Amino acid sequence: MNWQTYLDDNQANFESRLLDFLRIPSISSLPEHADAVRQAGAWVMAQLRDAGMEHVELMETGGHPVVYADWLHAPDKPTVMIYGHFDTQPVDPLELWESPPFAPVVKDGCVYARGASDDKGNMLAPVLALEALLKSEGSLPINVKCFFEGQEEIGSPTLPAFIAAHQTKFACDFVLSADGGQWSEDQPALLVGLKGLCALQLDVIGPAYDVHSGLYGGVIQNPIHALAAILTSMRGADGRILIEGFYDDVVPLSDVNRAEIERVPYDQEAVRQKLGIDAFFGEPGYTTLERSWGRPTLEVNGIWGGFQGEGVKTVLPSEAHAKITCRLVANQRPEKIAALLADHVARHTPPGVKATTAIKENGAMPYLMSGSHPGNIAARDVLVEIYDKEPFLARSGGSIPVTAMFLESLGAYTVSFGFALNDERQHSPNEFFRLDNFVRGQRAYCMLLHHLAQ
Amino acid sequence: MNWQTYLDDNQANFESRLLDFLRIPSISSLPEHADAVRQAGAWVMAQLRDAGMEHVELMETGGHPVVYADWLHAPDKPTVMIYGHFDTQPVDPLELWESPPFAPVVKDGCVYARGASDDKGNMLAPVLALEALLKSEGSLPINVKCFFEGQEEIGSPTLPAFIAAHQTKFACDFVLSADGGQWSEDQPALLVGLKGLCALQLDVIGPAYDVHSGLYGGVIQNPIHALAAILTSMRGADGRILIEGFYDDVVPLSDVNRAEIERVPYDQEAVRQKLGIDAFFGEPGYTTLERSWGRPTLEVNGIWGGFQGEGVKTVLPSEAHAKITCRLVANQRPEKIAALLADHVARHTPPGVKATTAIKENGAMPYLMSGSHPGNIAARDVLVEIYDKEPFLARSGGSIPVTAMFLESLGAYTVSFGFALNDERQHSPNEFFRLDNFVRGQRAYCMLLHHLAQ
Repeated sequence: MNWQTYLDDNQANFESRLLDFLRIPSISSLPEHADAVRQAGAWVMAQLRDAGMEHVELMETGGHPVVYADWLHAPDKPTVMIYGHFDTQPVDPLELWESPPFAPVVKDGCVYARGASDDKGNMLAPVLALEALLKSEGSLPINVKCFFEGQEEIGSPTLPAFIAAHQTKFACDFVLSADGGQWSEDQPALLVGLKGLCALQLDVIGPAYDVHSGLYGGVIQNPIHALAAILTSMRGADGRILIEGFYDDVVPLSDVNRAEIERVPYDQEAVRQKLGIDAFFGEPGYTTLERSWGRPTLEVNGIWGGFQGEGVKTVLPSEAHAKITCRLVANQRPEKIAALLADHVARHTPPGVKATTAIKENGAMPYLMSGSHPGNIAARDVLVEIYDKEPFLARSGGSIPVTAMFLESLGAYTVSFGFALNDERQHSPNEFFRLDNFVRGQRAYCMLLHHLAQ
Repeated sequence: MNWQTYLDDNQANFESRLLDFLRIPSISSLPEHADAVRQAGAWVMAQLRDAGMEHVELMETGGHPVVYADWLHAPDKPTVMIYGHFDTQPVDPLELWESPPFAPVVKDGCVYARGASDDKGNMLAPVLALEALLKSEGSLPINVKCFFEGQEEIGSPTLPAFIAAHQTKFACDFVLSADGGQWSEDQPALLVGLKGLCALQLDVIGPAYDVHSGLYGGVIQNPIHALAAILTSMRGADGRILIEGFYDDVVPLSDVNRAEIERVPYDQEAVRQKLGIDAFFGEPGYTTLERSWGRPTLEVNGIWGGFQGEGVKTVLPSEAHAKITCRLVANQRPEKIAALLADHVARHTPPGVKATTAIKENGAMPYLMSGSHPGNIAARDVLVEIYDKEPFLARSGGSIPVTAMFLESLGAYTVSFGFALNDERQHSPNEFFRLDNFVRGQRAYCMLLHHLAQ
């Protein structure tokens, strides 16, 4: 039997196991779900053990755990580390889900659940590929380590110290990330750039308690108005970020970069219709993809204050809050951007209220690698064989903090090799994953591991 | 027995009845509490019947009901209508209440509950005064009608049509409102001016669903940013409202007005410390009281959008919302102000989102009456006797919609004769009412009804 036969024979079973995996509500940002995150890790361990991987262990990190495994019996062959994450985003707003987020449903060739695409379906593919190779061939073509984590969605806060403390154990030629995707159903891509991340909460406090807006309106500052003014001061109507010093460390897009990006078709009209908007937005002087891939951003992810319920309440509230994230590009650093934001807020807080910023999670450094890295070349070969097309050299507006950590601590670049697609609602209600890509990913990993042996 | 003896003998019983009244969760803005509002009305009816009032009935208005009663056996005497309301504000945020809002607690001479001050304790005082007069004297000094409503906190939306349809029934020389207060524990006031009200919700919609802020940040407009920009465009940093046409119909404060207001001491420092703020705010060129009493305002009462929970969610949300109320002065009209706001929003909505405004409840017209109105003169006499001080001629930054309705439909002015105080947290958690003012109000109404008979 060869690995392809093994894969073909076991798809029904694989799908069933994926559904089991998806039922575990492993939301890393909620403390009350910490046990579920751990449970998801244990589930992954069981798969790896049954597959035939060795030294399978749950490693404590001081936060959510890491699942490790290896198979190191191919001397003179490269060593790659496969990365993925078994934690998920939160589910709000719950009422918009058509089926419960942790009760997976298979419909029209897709599986619907929180985490289906980001990242459980995606990361299970290489695990099943390892199983197929080990069960059908009795060995792997190269040395493989597995590093599956449970804190990606909160920025992997305890991993920098953890990875640095286990450099020998995690040493590898490069990392293969199963937390990524292709360009479309028939167009592959290699991800060579990721944005960094800086996450803050902005809190504005006015009077010590909610007061009557008739008695105090026009007499004292209103924290909601003050918050709105501070937020409006951060970003111009044209999309340019107005935080003083924000762009200082930004490496501009070179002509080569712009040409690489230009190669990539972007159906702006299709996106516009899908999102139901009548206009795009952003920094002038850049195309949509240049902004998405190569320019830093500041977005308010949430805002709240005062009375939000049904009806009317004539209150001048005590407080107002906002959650802000900045996506960074080389060479911005998250801790510096956080400091610049705090300064800006201090300078733009109207009298009569107090405003403070608090960093909400570890930031992520921006990341860039070459398309000619040996791992990218091998990945490119396999993608061409599968898709019969050259992959685009793409960047993402998103961040994967652990990618920068692997480079800093291990000197290892990360080749993005995942099979999610951008329309799978990864941070939204009704997230889903295409099952044909789930199958494709299993095959692609088998092919890639063999290809890397040559 | 005279009425003072009756009052003295029955205070413990009155207090117990007040607690019963306060236990009814008669929140008019919440549909699920409609039965409780009705129940509060029924409770008031029982008090009036037992007091000896006649023609006690629950009148249907198409919304929350009105409780009516009368005693009309004093020919050649004036007819006054006593007004109050048995509905309450909502209770959010519940977690800040030290005792449950509808489980009244008596502590340090005060009763703590939602509605204690606004308006149940306050309105129960004249009801008990009527009882004392009827039980001790067998009659009332003048003709009295009672009009107690259950929709004041939502702007009395069905009352304009209702009052207009019963002009004969409600005809009176003037109204005595038990929904008001005095200046302080030892300083009385007559309320001669009220602000109008216009309440709107502003809804901003961007993409059809929440999207990933890494993929779409800096590419599409963010509804929260757009909302912040729209709100910031409505009001200058100096407090001046920037809605085009907003001030057109405003009658400026005359020198006489300003002198009346100047008479009133305002301990700005005490207010500042009580509220815990370091600066005041508002339209330049006006004192704090002039702004509070005589200038229109715009306040955002609530704002929400995107992710508000614990942790981080890198989302660019689909929608953002704000609740806005404007307090109006003569001769602004709520429907015109609502239209001006809608226009302003249309002109200041950034591209890439849609913004709409929706009127959330009937507006209230602003209201002004003379200090020399016979009702005010009689009230002044009684207040001087009780407090041994001249009352201030005060205005309020708040609105009482029904006051304008009585003037328009019945040609009847409203004399404010209530005993709440401004620090009783009427629209905040831990609302309370001073029991000595509860007693004082009962006495004051007995005195006033006798005084009006002369």
